[in-house]
Amino acid sequence: MENSNDKLYNLRHTLAHLLAGAVLEIYPDTLPTIGPSIDDGFYYDFEFKTSPSESDLEKIEKKMKEILKNWNKFTVEEKTEKEAKEYFKNNPYKIELIDEIVEKGEKITFYTSGNFTDLCRGGHIENPNKEISPHSFKLDRIAGAYWRGNEKNKMLTRIYGLAFEDKEKLEEYIQQREEAKKRDHRRIGKELDLFHIDEKVGLGLPLWHPKGAILWRIIEDFWYKEHLKNGYDLVRTPHIGNRGLWETSGHWGFYNKSMYPPIEVGQTLEEKQKNLKAEVSEEYLLKPMNCPFHVQIYKDSPKSYRDLPLRWGECGTVYRYEKKGELSGLTRVRGFTQDDAHIICRKDQVEEELKKVIDFILFIYKSFGFDIETVKVFLSLRDPNDKEKYAGNDAGWDFTEEVLRKVAIDKKLDFEEEKGEAAFYGPKLDFKIKDVLGRMWQCSTLQFDFNLPERFNIVYTNEKGEEERAYILHRALFGSFERFIGLLIEHYAGAFPLWLSPIQIKILPISTDKHLDYAEKVYKELKENNIRVEIDDSNETLGKKIRNAKLEKIPYLIVIGDKEKESNTLTVEGRNGEKLENIAIINLIEKLKEKKL
Amino acid sequence: MENSNDKLYNLRHTLAHLLAGAVLEIYPDTLPTIGPSIDDGFYYDFEFKTSPSESDLEKIEKKMKEILKNWNKFTVEEKTEKEAKEYFKNNPYKIELIDEIVEKGEKITFYTSGNFTDLCRGGHIENPNKEISPHSFKLDRIAGAYWRGNEKNKMLTRIYGLAFEDKEKLEEYIQQREEAKKRDHRRIGKELDLFHIDEKVGLGLPLWHPKGAILWRIIEDFWYKEHLKNGYDLVRTPHIGNRGLWETSGHWGFYNKSMYPPIEVGQTLEEKQKNLKAEVSEEYLLKPMNCPFHVQIYKDSPKSYRDLPLRWGECGTVYRYEKKGELSGLTRVRGFTQDDAHIICRKDQVEEELKKVIDFILFIYKSFGFDIETVKVFLSLRDPNDKEKYAGNDAGWDFTEEVLRKVAIDKKLDFEEEKGEAAFYGPKLDFKIKDVLGRMWQCSTLQFDFNLPERFNIVYTNEKGEEERAYILHRALFGSFERFIGLLIEHYAGAFPLWLSPIQIKILPISTDKHLDYAEKVYKELKENNIRVEIDDSNETLGKKIRNAKLEKIPYLIVIGDKEKESNTLTVEGRNGEKLENIAIINLIEKLKEKKL
Repeated sequence: MENSNDKLYNLRHTLAHLLAGAVLEIYPDTLPTIGPSIDDGFYYDFEFKTSPSESDLEKIEKKMKEILKNWNKFTVEEKTEKEAKEYFKNNPYKIELIDEIVEKGEKITFYTSGNFTDLCRGGHIENPNKEISPHSFKLDRIAGAYWRGNEKNKMLTRIYGLAFEDKEKLEEYIQQREEAKKRDHRRIGKELDLFHIDEKVGLGLPLWHPKGAILWRIIEDFWYKEHLKNGYDLVRTPHIGNRGLWETSGHWGFYNKSMYPPIEVGQTLEEKQKNLKAEVSEEYLLKPMNCPFHVQIYKDSPKSYRDLPLRWGECGTVYRYEKKGELSGLTRVRGFTQDDAHIICRKDQVEEELKKVIDFILFIYKSFGFDIETVKVFLSLRDPNDKEKYAGNDAGWDFTEEVLRKVAIDKKLDFEEEKGEAAFYGPKLDFKIKDVLGRMWQCSTLQFDFNLPERFNIVYTNEKGEEERAYILHRALFGSFERFIGLLIEHYAGAFPLWLSPIQIKILPISTDKHLDYAEKVYKELKENNIRVEIDDSNETLGKKIRNAKLEKIPYLIVIGDKEKESNTLTVEGRNGEKLENIAIINLIEKLKEKKL
Repeated sequence: MENSNDKLYNLRHTLAHLLAGAVLEIYPDTLPTIGPSIDDGFYYDFEFKTSPSESDLEKIEKKMKEILKNWNKFTVEEKTEKEAKEYFKNNPYKIELIDEIVEKGEKITFYTSGNFTDLCRGGHIENPNKEISPHSFKLDRIAGAYWRGNEKNKMLTRIYGLAFEDKEKLEEYIQQREEAKKRDHRRIGKELDLFHIDEKVGLGLPLWHPKGAILWRIIEDFWYKEHLKNGYDLVRTPHIGNRGLWETSGHWGFYNKSMYPPIEVGQTLEEKQKNLKAEVSEEYLLKPMNCPFHVQIYKDSPKSYRDLPLRWGECGTVYRYEKKGELSGLTRVRGFTQDDAHIICRKDQVEEELKKVIDFILFIYKSFGFDIETVKVFLSLRDPNDKEKYAGNDAGWDFTEEVLRKVAIDKKLDFEEEKGEAAFYGPKLDFKIKDVLGRMWQCSTLQFDFNLPERFNIVYTNEKGEEERAYILHRALFGSFERFIGLLIEHYAGAFPLWLSPIQIKILPISTDKHLDYAEKVYKELKENNIRVEIDDSNETLGKKIRNAKLEKIPYLIVIGDKEKESNTLTVEGRNGEKLENIAIINLIEKLKEKKL
């Protein structure tokens, strides 16, 4: 039986056909290539003689709706290679697809509805005219796309459409997308002057402005305090390390495609030009992960069973060379700070430690205002058919996968298993949280590593005085600071809760001549009490000052005029409409400290 | 008139002759090379047929004292090149020196005392026998040294001696040096498990263990709080940046010898092997300084005169490729974290900002227990005869040097001027502080930069609506965290004051069977109050536990036995002998919070 997901898939796939049909009506000398269903609709890639522009989308959409009336059914015909190639003889893209179908020994099928016939595997709405509402879809945008995604191929024109079950769902989606655009952390990051990414510095390497850096520090401070409370210690390690270390860890072997190339020292410029090797030469790598450094700290002195578990946290900045096209604001960068920790423990401690981490993860989500009921967990396992991708033996994988599964069940996590998604060194639990718009964000990860202990021979002396191998858990709660802050910006649309707001209070003297002195007195007192405060001492009108402060999403405004100055009190207006009048500074400070505001 | 410094210099230089004389008596086929006076004595470099070992030093010292009896005076003779070369015909080192003297057109002089004659410019004690006490010097150690410090030359044998005005001063020095050895931060760093440097990671790249990392975090926390109080904002920048940025800043031109080589991305391994350039290729450099990143943040949006001064701080880790031989513990490293800030201001704000920084520097020294009366300042100026070394024009240098001088005078700093010691981008004030042993440590630096504003065109709009160039002050208060922590370790010999101690209190249950439960209760309460506390739950005797805690230099010990458990109180013993008996936990916490302990 067809389920509703399949139905939506078929609907979108049908609309891709309809789009191609409409395009060929208007632009008959166009070559259609492929047109799949996607997450929010469909697209179709064409080679146009002259590409349409976005302003043509209305015309094409209108044509789709017009011909939809004649699309009553789909007919399917099986074709021989010869017939198929004859039909598409002017379309090299379809010829290429036909060759591939033949090579795989599959059937060649043509699907026709209305006047449009396409090479297709099937999966359509049976009666488009009856089953598709003309209000349930909308052409969206035009983009360039390489044939089969390969930049060595020709650039085609891709037309995207949105499509949902009905008009309401389509409109809801469009509205949510508008909202998401307004909340885009890149946009708000600029509006609130939090950070920027600078071509002169390098793509994927954010620079944090004062308001972004203080936000970061507040979060980091919270992170450190909670970690110390939860029995973690801190460590601190450099950003580069000898290549040999990364060979031992396996990163160089399994992971070097994602790493920046080595820094070769010891060669003079002349030796370099002549391609000569220097006598003393070393290669350093930017760290893509913190683990091997933490391991070296562990190995600096012998450990006994009494020393374990060790929980070592570091907000360590790592560097990975992501492809330019994959970079995106704070969510996909080349340099990012993991809120990393390694738990080095005995086998008998593994389960309890895993559970503690899960509790900690959920506590963190709650602290930042997320609904932990919506947390979705993925248990990433190895793909037993692709052993080349993974280090370590079967017994190790079996044990660690089993423990993670047990812990996920015991902790009643809403989890799914995903084969082939494990790290090269072990299985993991990945946590996704839902933001205010219902979008899922990958955050925490809890990874089980039984390979590093083997590769680095990480041992302790057990109760019998024998050497025994330790286990390592890797975990990050935010995942990375950059990504998590990106998420927070979108979740709160920049209107951070008081404790996170870069500026908590803005003081607005009505007249800079008459009220600035009192404003400065208030500023000083608040600042001395560690409240993050600013004065707007511009010559703007009060109305303009209030509008500016609202754009900056400041939680509280203090308006200072004659009345306040004379009575030595304050008028405080909250971002959400609260108003406090005639309050003394000391009382305001008290309320802020007790978080009663 | 000869001053006492010259006299000590001459004494030490004379002893270098005496050492060479003694060596030639015992090892006649040795080639003497050069032997200068140094800070704590003298040395002489020899080419031995067979090098003596340290155990031979006693014998050589004895010979020095023996022949000193016959060293009643120095006679000087001027020689022709021919005569000099004839005398030293078997000594290629002296021949090389003679050639240089001739080339410079200087006189060749031989100095003789006792049976020993040396090529020398003079500068001796007139009557060694009378003026040098045989108890005022001591041979110290043997080391290898390349002829003229160049590693392409032959390795010679250097014998070091200590020498002072008299026996008392020599002994005092030796004792102080012993004390310094005990306080060596590398030694204490290991004993207290604060950090280690790992060959596998890389030389000069310290790894901070839990107790070191918490010490760092405490200091960093203090630093951030004080900076926010003092009107600074924070920024945060990556550790790598495009090479072009460093070309604009001038670092690549003036400073590249101290930088790690570029990371070249975009080249595949194959392209690299074939020495082909990739189509898209970028070069990134590890940052040796934070400045250009802060500049890019400034330039991200236009600034007005009302926005200035901006004070932007970052504890940013920078990387500089120091030579292996120059690396030393935490005081000379390859990766270090500057407690950096840039103050971007108008010309009319420069003086006040400089003065504020000076006050801040002195406040920081006081906070860490240094005597600010002993602070010594060096005003580093350009060398006007070596303009190649410096960026910028004379007018800029004149103005900035003059302002720094004025501020140093106004602030009544104890300062000296040093020509040729400026940074390439401007003059600076360097601050040195004295530790408990009287040694001076370079810490803070306050640098005036008028070049970056030019190179990056750093401007603001002035009151008239015109573009005007801003000024930049660079400053670091600690200098670097690594170096400053090294200094703190030596200053306190590892016995940090309470607020800095990685572990503030250690709980020692007399019996782990009977007293561990109460110990854990106390531990929990202290920990919840953010006190850094540990339990010694080993099975050692109380005596051993106390000795261990004292080795760890823990400020306070809590001994828990039957009495404490029954009365629900504590006995607290301070590192310095204080003792508190029958104190309730809550009262102890209060005392700690009020810093009344």
